Amino acid sequence: MQQGNTVFFPNRPKIVATATVAGPKECAGVVGEYVDFPLGDDMFGESTFERAERKMLLAALRRSVEKAGKSREEIDVIVSGDLLNQIVSASFAARETGLPFLGIYSACSTMSEGLLLAGMLVDGGYAKTAVAATGSHFSSAERQYRYPLELGTTRPPQSQWTVTGAGSAVISRIGEGPALTCATVGRVVDYGVSDVNNMGAAMAPAAADTILSHLRDTGREPSDYDLILTGDLGALGSRLCKDLVWEKGVDIFANHVDCGEIVYRVVEDEFQGGSGAGCSAVVFNSYIYDKLRRGGSLRKVLFVATGALLSTVTSGQGETIPCIAHAVAVEGDAL
Amino acid sequence: MQQGNTVFFPNRPKIVATATVAGPKECAGVVGEYVDFPLGDDMFGESTFERAERKMLLAALRRSVEKAGKSREEIDVIVSGDLLNQIVSASFAARETGLPFLGIYSACSTMSEGLLLAGMLVDGGYAKTAVAATGSHFSSAERQYRYPLELGTTRPPQSQWTVTGAGSAVISRIGEGPALTCATVGRVVDYGVSDVNNMGAAMAPAAADTILSHLRDTGREPSDYDLILTGDLGALGSRLCKDLVWEKGVDIFANHVDCGEIVYRVVEDEFQGGSGAGCSAVVFNSYIYDKLRRGGSLRKVLFVATGALLSTVTSGQGETIPCIAHAVAVEGDAL
Repeated sequence: MQQGNTVFFPNRPKIVATATVAGPKECAGVVGEYVDFPLGDDMFGESTFERAERKMLLAALRRSVEKAGKSREEIDVIVSGDLLNQIVSASFAARETGLPFLGIYSACSTMSEGLLLAGMLVDGGYAKTAVAATGSHFSSAERQYRYPLELGTTRPPQSQWTVTGAGSAVISRIGEGPALTCATVGRVVDYGVSDVNNMGAAMAPAAADTILSHLRDTGREPSDYDLILTGDLGALGSRLCKDLVWEKGVDIFANHVDCGEIVYRVVEDEFQGGSGAGCSAVVFNSYIYDKLRRGGSLRKVLFVATGALLSTVTSGQGETIPCIAHAVAVEGDAL
Repeated sequence: MQQGNTVFFPNRPKIVATATVAGPKECAGVVGEYVDFPLGDDMFGESTFERAERKMLLAALRRSVEKAGKSREEIDVIVSGDLLNQIVSASFAARETGLPFLGIYSACSTMSEGLLLAGMLVDGGYAKTAVAATGSHFSSAERQYRYPLELGTTRPPQSQWTVTGAGSAVISRIGEGPALTCATVGRVVDYGVSDVNNMGAAMAPAAADTILSHLRDTGREPSDYDLILTGDLGALGSRLCKDLVWEKGVDIFANHVDCGEIVYRVVEDEFQGGSGAGCSAVVFNSYIYDKLRRGGSLRKVLFVATGALLSTVTSGQGETIPCIAHAVAVEGDAL
């Protein structure tokens, strides 16, 4: 059931339903037509960005449970976290459900840590049905991690744009849907990048490390996957990741794509693309899940969400940026 | 394997070793003689409180692995989190180990969430050996959650004192030690308390909810446990918890103790006792583990660490305090 850093799921827990919410900027891109709740206004009827963020997470969570045809009582546990200090979006959303809750934190790799843990809980028989969910909001992240929005600070070209959106996946042993077959738990990797505007460069080594561990542990080739999907490396980080993997003699150029690269239509002010826990949560649970579900060109996906484990305090104290990436292998039904 | 919110561990994963680090104030109390690294100075040779905190966590983690007689390579995964924004103590400590890492956040209930998850991973065969660890530091918590220490703010009588210390437990399917037999995943409970200085009152309902769920799911009586050990309710919260459970017709007065109540020798300026993720981590992994290991008066313990899931932003925005408690049942070897 375990080889190196990779765990296997012999019972093949299924992702029986997903749901997503995304802001107007996100819905202008490729995910737009797949999102359950495309928002015209990123305040979502709330008075603060933080309230809007948790409302998005809760909406995605509830909708995914509904789409799975489950009642509230059939959900055994929610595994969730987010970028805000003390993961308040997840905790406050969980409060509204009254369901057992396991809080996790893995920055922007929360979606894959959630799928990995929910997969283990369901595969191991500790839950019949589990929900993994996360999200982020550009405005709450910006003011927490960077500067007050009102300052209108100039963004450097290596920066990314935090995705406003949330995604939720319902994992169950019974039902139809793409199966979680194995997962690789990431290690904390730090190549010494300290530029908080260059998350792609900071996270690329962690993504490369996890992809290489996964292939080594499973004895697979990159070509065994139709897609190796990283979380939010963006355009620059994505190139770095491919190069780092290439240096170890493994070629993922042909079948690697990054959620951050594809979430926005590339226009000037988003620079390297999308980031944030919501980035891979929205892309994976809408566009990618739909393709897996249809069983066309995408049958086997290695989903590797990536996270930068810094805080404003560690950066202020001169620390570099430790990063992590967790991988889950998802297989659509063979038709 | 699962009943209500409770999961069972048929393979009885063992806590084969624990280790703790604690500050001078903590070591003056009952835990003093059981702590592996009693510190004379809570800076632990570091230049900032945050660095001292992560050094404590890493020291506890390493020492616990050493005491378990394991090499670094034998540890499959670290499950850890802490109180600092973005759980930087856990992430930075995990970076030093190079081991697979699952970040969790459950405020001061991190120790029991960690034991619960590590227990599932080991019981389910997803890891042979897992480490659960957490900690906190009075000074880093105080300046993050409350006021700069230099202000010398007066503390109200309902307040508690964040424990400076860390604890780590090594869970393995093979080896000797008290066994994890089942665990109850907590729900987020909020009775509307908004006083950030009264964590005991905020968290007591969550502790009561989890204890009652646990007893209902398992069909057990409080007297089936030699001790029901909550995490950091403090003196006031502890009384409230006992009363709330009593109102539901269950009497835990005889065998309930709170880590926060016993960690300090009660003197005026600690008011309700200890709090923080390090509170239950230090008490459980030193004093209580020693008693379980010796197999004297303590054979069966229900460990229910408690957490308040607020942030300074949610409090500033007028929100109440959502709380959670996770329970793990630990059984010493019958002699």
